[in-house]
Amino acid sequence: MRLTTGYAAHEPGEQLRPWSFPRRELRPDDVAIEVMYCGVCHSDLHALHTQKSESGPLVPGHEFVGRVRATGAAATSFTEGDLVAVGNIVDSCGACAMCGAGQENYCARFPTLTYAGADRFDGSLTHGAYSYEYVATQRFVYPLPGGLDPAAAAPLMCAGVTVWEPLQSSDVGPGMKVGIVGLGGLGHLALKFARALGADVALFTTSKAKTDDARALGADEVIVTEDTDALATQAHRFDVILDTASAPHDLSPYLRALRLDGTLWALGSLGSMEFDPLSLLIGRKRLASAGSGGTPATREMLDFCARHSVTADVEVLPAAEVNTALDRLRRGDVRYRFVLDLTDGAANV
Amino acid sequence: MRLTTGYAAHEPGEQLRPWSFPRRELRPDDVAIEVMYCGVCHSDLHALHTQKSESGPLVPGHEFVGRVRATGAAATSFTEGDLVAVGNIVDSCGACAMCGAGQENYCARFPTLTYAGADRFDGSLTHGAYSYEYVATQRFVYPLPGGLDPAAAAPLMCAGVTVWEPLQSSDVGPGMKVGIVGLGGLGHLALKFARALGADVALFTTSKAKTDDARALGADEVIVTEDTDALATQAHRFDVILDTASAPHDLSPYLRALRLDGTLWALGSLGSMEFDPLSLLIGRKRLASAGSGGTPATREMLDFCARHSVTADVEVLPAAEVNTALDRLRRGDVRYRFVLDLTDGAANV
Repeated sequence: MRLTTGYAAHEPGEQLRPWSFPRRELRPDDVAIEVMYCGVCHSDLHALHTQKSESGPLVPGHEFVGRVRATGAAATSFTEGDLVAVGNIVDSCGACAMCGAGQENYCARFPTLTYAGADRFDGSLTHGAYSYEYVATQRFVYPLPGGLDPAAAAPLMCAGVTVWEPLQSSDVGPGMKVGIVGLGGLGHLALKFARALGADVALFTTSKAKTDDARALGADEVIVTEDTDALATQAHRFDVILDTASAPHDLSPYLRALRLDGTLWALGSLGSMEFDPLSLLIGRKRLASAGSGGTPATREMLDFCARHSVTADVEVLPAAEVNTALDRLRRGDVRYRFVLDLTDGAANV
Repeated sequence: MRLTTGYAAHEPGEQLRPWSFPRRELRPDDVAIEVMYCGVCHSDLHALHTQKSESGPLVPGHEFVGRVRATGAAATSFTEGDLVAVGNIVDSCGACAMCGAGQENYCARFPTLTYAGADRFDGSLTHGAYSYEYVATQRFVYPLPGGLDPAAAAPLMCAGVTVWEPLQSSDVGPGMKVGIVGLGGLGHLALKFARALGADVALFTTSKAKTDDARALGADEVIVTEDTDALATQAHRFDVILDTASAPHDLSPYLRALRLDGTLWALGSLGSMEFDPLSLLIGRKRLASAGSGGTPATREMLDFCARHSVTADVEVLPAAEVNTALDRLRRGDVRYRFVLDLTDGAANV
């Protein structure tokens, strides 16, 4: 066993604190990664909130960049020292139709999650990348293209691909009018992506204070939705809207804002979806959802980001300040993604 | 004023009985139509069920075929004796983006419904085609292509176009696997259309007794959904599913039956849509809805039906038996659309 140190919630509701735990010995396909930067995702908060005492300590973290430290005998895609990135999936069955289509995120036998998942070989609980070392099979390890800042690239691996796939699935490009609801981790990357893809982009936000930021990030238009009238005037304007707001809310105004045959992607909230059926019917609209990404799309997104110099706007905090990051994220006090810096090495914990 | 006779519910809950009422004098764009056959649609039941006493008598009927009896001075598209068809919309603003796109059914100022609508000029309540004459502006009157049986063509005008547009919007054609939920007025036409468009078609039905009918109508496969296991084995099989079942039900099994990026059209029920958000998220699915059709699609559908000899399977009843038709429809005792025969003429009422 390889020992590493991570930041774990030992019991539900507790603050995270350092915890020494084993990583598996490398299997032939495995890569051991020295974690450098790990993004702090909304789902980390969700996982901590729903943690069960009987599952043992929870180490979150599923969007990270690091450096290859060691490789298994068959992990020939990588060599020591390579900069790599990993997202929220670290294995899948590889045999079902979804895996065959390169959509391991929808694996019929459920993908192995980067943390709080069950390893496909020994059934052990996976622990995330709020830690100094991670071991993953090479199929889910991605080379980080040159030119991308490692800290700012980490959030691409979950927040990024989660908005990238819907944009691709809806063929977003020049001549399209795209709306983004919410300017958080997902929203600000959706905005940058849609803009880089050539679309005309509007940001819907409840917070007037975000107007300047949204403009600076590339929004052609900002619609402040605390003003109910502002939403009512948006009818039939958008080809595609990506709703990244995490709080439950009525989807009807955004469905109404779509053009004929338009698509609303509900990406931010996993709860029940509230909407007036007529807002879907009138104008022949689509309500879609999606989560995470498959391996081909993840590679394409990383290449696209390198070509267009797109990364997340991040606030980097030392890993020891993980509880501050989580508290501030809980309050929405982040522009626009916290990233934990683990380059100090476990020795300092 | 032109007098005609129709079958009206004078008060909510009452049986329909003959009622003599005025049709408007022809405006320049108007066509007066001698109604020959009018389909009995599920929405007629809904309208009768929700009828308000203060609105006065309700004459249903919004999918009919008839013969032109007279034309206004500017209604040059038609001449006396022409066989024509009319659907559930008889006017629209003509100026909004949806009207401009030929989707008058989604007119921003709301289309004028064939019955229980408000005339755009004098505000009077429209009365439907359970009657011997109908007057409509020529823009919403369609020439009936030769070769289509007038009685069997009537249901195309509402049931038909309601399933035609989603099939077109989803580009259904050869090589696609299409599911149809429910074998009623909409469902049996959806099945015929999808088959004629070249798709591989499966019918989902709660009634094992409909298996032979479905096969005869062209279904390549019949999935009896009273058997819960049968639905569970359908995961990731369909590109498109049209759900035409009018009773409220959980949409999740049909969302799960879709392939990656597949679309479920909820067409049969106007109530709230119940589904597990994860059944939408896993496989990046779309839930869509639609209602009725625009004028270009209606013309295309009629041409397609003439080329492929597609009409509804109808049971034709004398208009005087309208209450029998409504009662039997309420009980689901119809294969697959009732059509009222009004060719006996008002004189016999």
